[in-house]
Amino acid sequence: MKSFTYSLTSHDGHARAGEFHTPHGPLKTPIFAPVGTQATVKALTPLQLEALGATLLLANTYHLYLRPGEDLIAEMGGLHTFMRWSGPILTDSGGFQVFSLADSREINAEGVTFRSHIDGSTHFFSPEKAIQIQEVLGADIIMTFDECAPPYDRAYNEQAVERTHRWAERCLSIKTREDQALFGIIQGGVFPDLRIQSAEFIASLDFPGIAIGGLSVGETKEEMLAMLEVLAPVMPDEKPRYLMGVGSPEDILESVARGIDIFDCVLPTRMARNHAALTRQGRLNMRKAGFAKDPRPIDPDCTCYTCSEFSRAYIRHLIMAREILAATLLSIHNLHMLISLMDDIRQAIIDGEFNEFADDFRAGYRKHRLEGS
Amino acid sequence: MKSFTYSLTSHDGHARAGEFHTPHGPLKTPIFAPVGTQATVKALTPLQLEALGATLLLANTYHLYLRPGEDLIAEMGGLHTFMRWSGPILTDSGGFQVFSLADSREINAEGVTFRSHIDGSTHFFSPEKAIQIQEVLGADIIMTFDECAPPYDRAYNEQAVERTHRWAERCLSIKTREDQALFGIIQGGVFPDLRIQSAEFIASLDFPGIAIGGLSVGETKEEMLAMLEVLAPVMPDEKPRYLMGVGSPEDILESVARGIDIFDCVLPTRMARNHAALTRQGRLNMRKAGFAKDPRPIDPDCTCYTCSEFSRAYIRHLIMAREILAATLLSIHNLHMLISLMDDIRQAIIDGEFNEFADDFRAGYRKHRLEGS
Repeated sequence: MKSFTYSLTSHDGHARAGEFHTPHGPLKTPIFAPVGTQATVKALTPLQLEALGATLLLANTYHLYLRPGEDLIAEMGGLHTFMRWSGPILTDSGGFQVFSLADSREINAEGVTFRSHIDGSTHFFSPEKAIQIQEVLGADIIMTFDECAPPYDRAYNEQAVERTHRWAERCLSIKTREDQALFGIIQGGVFPDLRIQSAEFIASLDFPGIAIGGLSVGETKEEMLAMLEVLAPVMPDEKPRYLMGVGSPEDILESVARGIDIFDCVLPTRMARNHAALTRQGRLNMRKAGFAKDPRPIDPDCTCYTCSEFSRAYIRHLIMAREILAATLLSIHNLHMLISLMDDIRQAIIDGEFNEFADDFRAGYRKHRLEGS
Repeated sequence: MKSFTYSLTSHDGHARAGEFHTPHGPLKTPIFAPVGTQATVKALTPLQLEALGATLLLANTYHLYLRPGEDLIAEMGGLHTFMRWSGPILTDSGGFQVFSLADSREINAEGVTFRSHIDGSTHFFSPEKAIQIQEVLGADIIMTFDECAPPYDRAYNEQAVERTHRWAERCLSIKTREDQALFGIIQGGVFPDLRIQSAEFIASLDFPGIAIGGLSVGETKEEMLAMLEVLAPVMPDEKPRYLMGVGSPEDILESVARGIDIFDCVLPTRMARNHAALTRQGRLNMRKAGFAKDPRPIDPDCTCYTCSEFSRAYIRHLIMAREILAATLLSIHNLHMLISLMDDIRQAIIDGEFNEFADDFRAGYRKHRLEGS
């Protein structure tokens, strides 16, 4: 019996609701995964993550490889035990960070030589190395090592797609663990023909899930959504689809409408540390003087711990006083906001009312975003 | 019926176990109060504080007066509602901060003019003002406005004791709220005669509790304990005794042995942010390379959330990676350590075994402190 099965519960247009089974429990899709870059979702305990409804967490292979090192994590019982997350975990391959974060890099067919952003030391990642590290970390979902090119560079994207495909094959052939699902990654920038070519190739390999990389990396929102529209009919219906690094509430909604099942993004927790609260009406800058004496919760309709207990006035005070608790309370709220939005989106799909839900969301979100910003 | 009653359950030598009733619930003494300077115990939610066993919290009048201002807190329903702490709260009078933290100050019989450490603005605190602010904040236990002199300056301490006494009388006469217990403060530096004079005067006034100020401010530990020994027979048995700003596990134990009931200190949370863990065997520097692959909890005998879930290796990783969660997990552990130590001390007093408990603690603490440091 396979460890990973994906069952599609409902379709509503291109939007999909399903369930993906992993060794650490089922994931109800569409789903949003909070990001725990360094084996911790910043400012939150696992208990708080559980309470706000998180199920799938993402951790970054590049960061954990550099610090504390995958072997140390393995010695401590693997990533789940190390960070005390008993639910499913997804690790990326390190590809994106090597291309976006490392201090310098040299790429050839074999792999990438790069310098650590922490101490400048030299390292080498290849498809084989990326899989080996991820097998040692032990996440439920792992990713192929890909090359993410600047979105508008046609020649580079042609080359990157080609390399990404070769690397995908190498990842698949070196993989050994049966209790990890390896997802292949589609590249191709903003070029429909490259995207289709990449999707067809990745879909032809034996991956239990398909990821879309190289979006939300500098192209416009319209271009991103156009790529999803191009990809929707090409991607196999029976595999979960993961849009890497997205996103905001509005981007998630529009991406679900275009057939995406899995999301991850640092946005809710990063925004929290930058004093912004996500609501279904738009973003609120919690430093605003207007909140100084506001006794209401961030969102009166929200059921998270932060909104159940604390006033906008208190949260603004914590921000002005540079208290750590501000980051914690806003992270709880922002993650809960995205996760409960996902729950409602999923229910709307199951009920066959996704279009109405999306229209309502768009109407409310746009209107208040202007007021709140 | 009075809002505040103190019942002494047991004596064991000078050590005392009792119960102090407040409008927000009973306090079992001896007790340690975590410090929530700016209406938040740094890096912790009220839910986490409750789970680790906190009952009494301290907040600082000086800080809250400057930011966000006591009137704003009152408008938001008072300090309990603002910071969502349903248990008892104690506020200090601002005296200590005015003398130790404010940028400059001028003292006369009327009060103190000082400049804010935040923005340099000029403010005036008097006994009347300190009580008025504390009545607006609404804590259960409030403090008289006192003058804290450098411990070795005889002439200054004579003058400060005199002024502290006049100010204590003024605080008592201006106080209006029946649901707040005003504690008087003893001063007198390291001078036994001044301490006795101050204790006798403060004890002669109608305060439901007695605090000892001006200790743990630069004198040696031996001098501090000597003052407590001088004071023990002078302080009334039927009132709770609060040693302000103390302290470490060892200081707390020795102070209980000399008749103290209530403690507060930033030490456990400040140490947590500086990567130190308190244990009954001594302090551990959690940055130590030796902990990098240590799968054990901070303290295998500890029942706190941190020790129930996380390894030393994980906590060290969080510290090295500069993750906020390090401060949270260490704060939970350090506060739980002091609070559970208090529980055990209290039980030992009730069982008439305090001396044995204290001897065991001293033996274990000294030995391992050397190893751990």
